[in-house]
Amino acid sequence: MSLELTFLGTGSAFPCPARGASALLLRRDGHCWLFDCGEGTQTQLMRSHLRAARITKIFITHLHGDHIFGLPGLLCTLSLQSSPDASKAPVDIYGPLGLRSFLWRSLELSHSQLLFPYTVHELVPTRDQCPPEEFRDFSGLDRGETPAQAPPGRVLHLEPGEDSYLLLEDEQLVVRAFRLFHRVPSFGFVLEEKPRPGKLNVQKLKDLGVPPGPLYGQLKRGAAVVLESGATVRPGDVLGAPVPGRKVCVLGDCSGPVGPAAERLCRGADVLVHEATLEDGMQELARERGHSTPGAAARFARCCRARRLVLTHFSQRYGPDDLGRLKKQAEALLDGQEVTLAEDFMTIEIPLKR
Amino acid sequence: MSLELTFLGTGSAFPCPARGASALLLRRDGHCWLFDCGEGTQTQLMRSHLRAARITKIFITHLHGDHIFGLPGLLCTLSLQSSPDASKAPVDIYGPLGLRSFLWRSLELSHSQLLFPYTVHELVPTRDQCPPEEFRDFSGLDRGETPAQAPPGRVLHLEPGEDSYLLLEDEQLVVRAFRLFHRVPSFGFVLEEKPRPGKLNVQKLKDLGVPPGPLYGQLKRGAAVVLESGATVRPGDVLGAPVPGRKVCVLGDCSGPVGPAAERLCRGADVLVHEATLEDGMQELARERGHSTPGAAARFARCCRARRLVLTHFSQRYGPDDLGRLKKQAEALLDGQEVTLAEDFMTIEIPLKR
Ligand SMILES: [Zn+2]
Ligand SMILES: [Zn+2]
Ligand SMILES: [Zn+2]
Ligand SMILES: [Zn+2]
Repeated sequence: MSLELTFLGTGSAFPCPARGASALLLRRDGHCWLFDCGEGTQTQLMRSHLRAARITKIFITHLHGDHIFGLPGLLCTLSLQSSPDASKAPVDIYGPLGLRSFLWRSLELSHSQLLFPYTVHELVPTRDQCPPEEFRDFSGLDRGETPAQAPPGRVLHLEPGEDSYLLLEDEQLVVRAFRLFHRVPSFGFVLEEKPRPGKLNVQKLKDLGVPPGPLYGQLKRGAAVVLESGATVRPGDVLGAPVPGRKVCVLGDCSGPVGPAAERLCRGADVLVHEATLEDGMQELARERGHSTPGAAARFARCCRARRLVLTHFSQRYGPDDLGRLKKQAEALLDGQEVTLAEDFMTIEIPLKR
Repeated sequence: MSLELTFLGTGSAFPCPARGASALLLRRDGHCWLFDCGEGTQTQLMRSHLRAARITKIFITHLHGDHIFGLPGLLCTLSLQSSPDASKAPVDIYGPLGLRSFLWRSLELSHSQLLFPYTVHELVPTRDQCPPEEFRDFSGLDRGETPAQAPPGRVLHLEPGEDSYLLLEDEQLVVRAFRLFHRVPSFGFVLEEKPRPGKLNVQKLKDLGVPPGPLYGQLKRGAAVVLESGATVRPGDVLGAPVPGRKVCVLGDCSGPVGPAAERLCRGADVLVHEATLEDGMQELARERGHSTPGAAARFARCCRARRLVLTHFSQRYGPDDLGRLKKQAEALLDGQEVTLAEDFMTIEIPLKR
């Protein structure tokens, strides 16, 4: 099953012709999941080979404009492209508390009636995710204002034991969010596939007298089988070690993580997407603005032993000639491991493990 | 004094790479005034030769997303480019009731603190500007929610005698809004320069014994002068006929005007910018969606004897090859007068009259 990331916007603060505002599309099994949606994302999608209509889930790292101002327009355009179908599964949108109000107000005031259902699941940040003077409590917003028309969705609190938020889980994968420190509360997302069963050992199957056919499938799916001889064969007898799934981590703007979950959840990531707004040597300014440098991103990647670090969210001050410098700054800390600089429309494939 | 229009987005419904969402920049005397601000307008501005920092006034025709979703992001980027200066004149934003709430919520929830002051002046529409089932009363919005932080501004009601809204007036010009019918209440804007005094007739000045110098200027400015001889010379004695100012009319999306003001205010327009979303032959669909065809736009232009009709807001279904058809449809009703099809980045100069 293919798994790939396409960067639709890799610039910081505002969209430019050379680098759009933040947006990243993950494609798996025909489904497209969008991470952040800065202004112009729908136009970047049109410029790419991807189809906006395939988007089924949207994850918003934080509420800065360069990550959300494209969302109302994208939803309106998705709606224009869709036919009314009440039975359609809703588009699930995940993001910080306040996202529901932003979306609902924007759509309401622009008289936009979406033809498809959508839900907004809000993550409640903790106060230590931003400087105290920047923290705003959005929990009381829109109280008493026609909530019947507002989109449904869950309110997700930090699970204290886990230090993270469980967003969704099915047979194949699990998605969690963890906390980051930024000028405003920010989050990182981890998509992790569950391990696949190991390979069947055909020689062992023969030795144990399992006849080829449906019993093979049953064992592969993890169920024991009873042979005609009355003997029981367990999956562990004939299966190789489970094949680990892939792990993709997308971090929002941050000067660093909050709490221990970030490092634990990102451990061994196949791809770690981390911002590097400003170069090493501008650490002071970066920290003040709640941002990271290539060095800080690389240190985090090294801590979690990420297999591949991808830097993005570059200050619009940097032209193509400057970015080689940022790449080297990150690589200097990673022991020869190559670092990828994201560009608009770049696609990264993450191959299945064997 | 130069006066020019630059189209930044000429497409309908959503931004495309070939045609941005609605935005039009008027430049006069070094000031830039923006009409509508669809998603991506700030990026279109960067692609043009114009500087966003020069924008001092913004006019919004109606609250559909393809006319407003670029506004929060544009203001944030203007703020990034500006230095804090409390003495700076505010950016004046004019638009339908509800615009203040849209802007304020978007900026508030995205934690955007603008470094320059701005005001939002809201036009209160009348109920007959859209189908009754679409009308929403936004007058109670945000009541009781920290109005101290919301931007200041006036609430403008229709002046019944005039059937229009007076937005601003100074020594040089006047800007009025008038009502249009659309799926949601929509407005048109007329900028009209006041007449300039006529030319001084130097022969007559000599004949009357007015000595060259400051008295010439006084007469030109419209003041009578008393000569040493005791004789009074009035401006009318020595000035030619006043030179009419220029008139630019920008209409929002509409299937037609509401009330008599539109035609009266647009009479003799030097440039009339009118939407033509769908071609003739799709009148039914156009009307249903509150839009115009080239024929409808041309009939309105003919009624007001506009000197130049510019069509814009074309459905994204039309490629460059289709639009010639729309041009011909409008020209067929205009007696050989050429019609202009707007394109992104097209600039139209409107010369001074003599
Ligand atoms: Zn950002
Ligand atoms: Zn940010
Ligand atoms: Zn429109
Ligand atoms: Zn409209």
